[in-house]
Amino acid sequence: MEEEKNLYQTEQQSTISSFTKPIRCIVKLGGAAITCKNELEKINEEVLQKVSAQLRQAMIASSGKPPGMDWSKRPGKSEISCNPDDFGEDHSVLDCSPFIVVHGAGSFGHFQASKSGVHKGQLQKPLVKGGFVATRISVTTLNLEIVRALAREGIPSIGMSPFSCGWFTSKKNIASADLSMVAKATDFGFIPVLHGDAVLDETQGCAILSGDVIISHLAAHSKPEFVVFLTDVYGVYDRPPTEPDAILIREIAVGEDGSWAVVKPKLQNSNNKIELTAAAHDTTGGMATKISEAAMIAKLGIDVYIVKAATSHSLRVLNGELRSSIPDDWLGTVVRFSG
Amino acid sequence: MEEEKNLYQTEQQSTISSFTKPIRCIVKLGGAAITCKNELEKINEEVLQKVSAQLRQAMIASSGKPPGMDWSKRPGKSEISCNPDDFGEDHSVLDCSPFIVVHGAGSFGHFQASKSGVHKGQLQKPLVKGGFVATRISVTTLNLEIVRALAREGIPSIGMSPFSCGWFTSKKNIASADLSMVAKATDFGFIPVLHGDAVLDETQGCAILSGDVIISHLAAHSKPEFVVFLTDVYGVYDRPPTEPDAILIREIAVGEDGSWAVVKPKLQNSNNKIELTAAAHDTTGGMATKISEAAMIAKLGIDVYIVKAATSHSLRVLNGELRSSIPDDWLGTVVRFSG
Repeated sequence: MEEEKNLYQTEQQSTISSFTKPIRCIVKLGGAAITCKNELEKINEEVLQKVSAQLRQAMIASSGKPPGMDWSKRPGKSEISCNPDDFGEDHSVLDCSPFIVVHGAGSFGHFQASKSGVHKGQLQKPLVKGGFVATRISVTTLNLEIVRALAREGIPSIGMSPFSCGWFTSKKNIASADLSMVAKATDFGFIPVLHGDAVLDETQGCAILSGDVIISHLAAHSKPEFVVFLTDVYGVYDRPPTEPDAILIREIAVGEDGSWAVVKPKLQNSNNKIELTAAAHDTTGGMATKISEAAMIAKLGIDVYIVKAATSHSLRVLNGELRSSIPDDWLGTVVRFSG
Repeated sequence: MEEEKNLYQTEQQSTISSFTKPIRCIVKLGGAAITCKNELEKINEEVLQKVSAQLRQAMIASSGKPPGMDWSKRPGKSEISCNPDDFGEDHSVLDCSPFIVVHGAGSFGHFQASKSGVHKGQLQKPLVKGGFVATRISVTTLNLEIVRALAREGIPSIGMSPFSCGWFTSKKNIASADLSMVAKATDFGFIPVLHGDAVLDETQGCAILSGDVIISHLAAHSKPEFVVFLTDVYGVYDRPPTEPDAILIREIAVGEDGSWAVVKPKLQNSNNKIELTAAAHDTTGGMATKISEAAMIAKLGIDVYIVKAATSHSLRVLNGELRSSIPDDWLGTVVRFSG
């Protein structure tokens, strides 16, 4: 009996979900955008600050910046970041649109995960076990810094690790995910901040659960109005964006069967195939994973926008200005269900 | 029906627990011991390092220090703390006795919680909501530093926030606590590190869940062999330990009904009552809470030791040397069920 139950749990996804409040938007902060790719555990402070300010403008309608919620000292500083005395009785500062933030790892976590092979399992090996602990330390360090950056802007951000929330995988796919605390946090007006994490895996002992997989799982169960991927390039290109003739894909249409095709611009090679590249640092899949995850979300009828972080283009999409139509001067890629 | 269900959930504790592996020991790292009480958000690095080394000796039998698992850079440092290349194929480094660590807040979190009144609820007030976010930032900052200190000693520590694990309270008592991830982590040979946290409360919106309440809940459901409170004094005294004539209580006996009495030494005032003091910083209850929580644990037949952190006395108790009898030269307080 016990064995049967385990088998069942392995083959079926088990998700505890109870979203009562409609989610406005799920935002992915790409690891490549918010960290310095080539320097171990270095945050791109400038981009993170701009992204946080844009998220605040998108989430909080109040005129002016609300009081900051990070009342801790930053490393090396003797004063706390924000002053609690800035809070008044004005309850409008709390009107925060229900967003969920998920971030990648960038230059946090990848070194530790690759060095030990956490993504390949075999937790019984000392190096893998050490790497599991080390990876979680690195990604939770980044999570805390992102939560703090958002809180400094007055966003009521709450860090939530998939591991602690009880998410685990089976053959690297989500086997069980408890979304009830994410739902509860949004019900109470908080902004949950999740992240790619090292998790337990029923078949191989451990695995890396990527931010992109978390996004599509969350999207399927919370049905947000739209999903935004903030990256370090303007969107999806027909070839590596570093190549001089690379063309930015403006729109990708996704069919019932999950297949996708470029609809704008019309590309010269008739089959509309595009070359896919994975960033050197991205052990979780790069652009190929991103498009197929985006296609899975779009198939649910949820529009997905891939856009460069901390630009006027990202601000417009986060504000919801592109929900009805995409202006010609907007740079980015939309992935949409075409029916 | 819905209302009835909610009422039921409020009045009954709901705990998801699945400890399959016997837990050796639950250790509380007192906030006063591991932080500098009078300086905002300052860790007592020396004590934390010694405590971590003692925990390593108690948990890991291997001769010599195992390789460190904190492969991250510390703030202001350019090199990672431990070298992954130190790991060999020797699997004995993984034989880690099943402990659970819970820590208090000390000079982390208390300022943010007191300033905003998070412990009094009323999450709809802007200051309280800001304080909730600020408190969680502060306590998770401490949690991460403790996880890192343990990992540097080679302890496979995993930070787990009660909030993210889905713990919440009702009238400040635990209403629901999901222990399944704590149990799963210990099953896989990890050492969960929990902490006092700001949590949602079904009746008043939010509350502070203290480390001591977490410990007694964990003890009741995981039935450890023994529980250790590491504090900044030698144990429980008959009056404030700063007074010159304060006498260290060696043993407290707990009856079936949860009442307790000092059995060693024989005190001169016949009723064996002791004066209880709460440390200025400890908004979660101080020594009075500690003894009554210890008594609740002892009532379950689990011995509780209250001992000064980072001393030869704490090392002996963590090693389990005091399980059969208490030597006269041991300084500390034992709280035991007397039947």
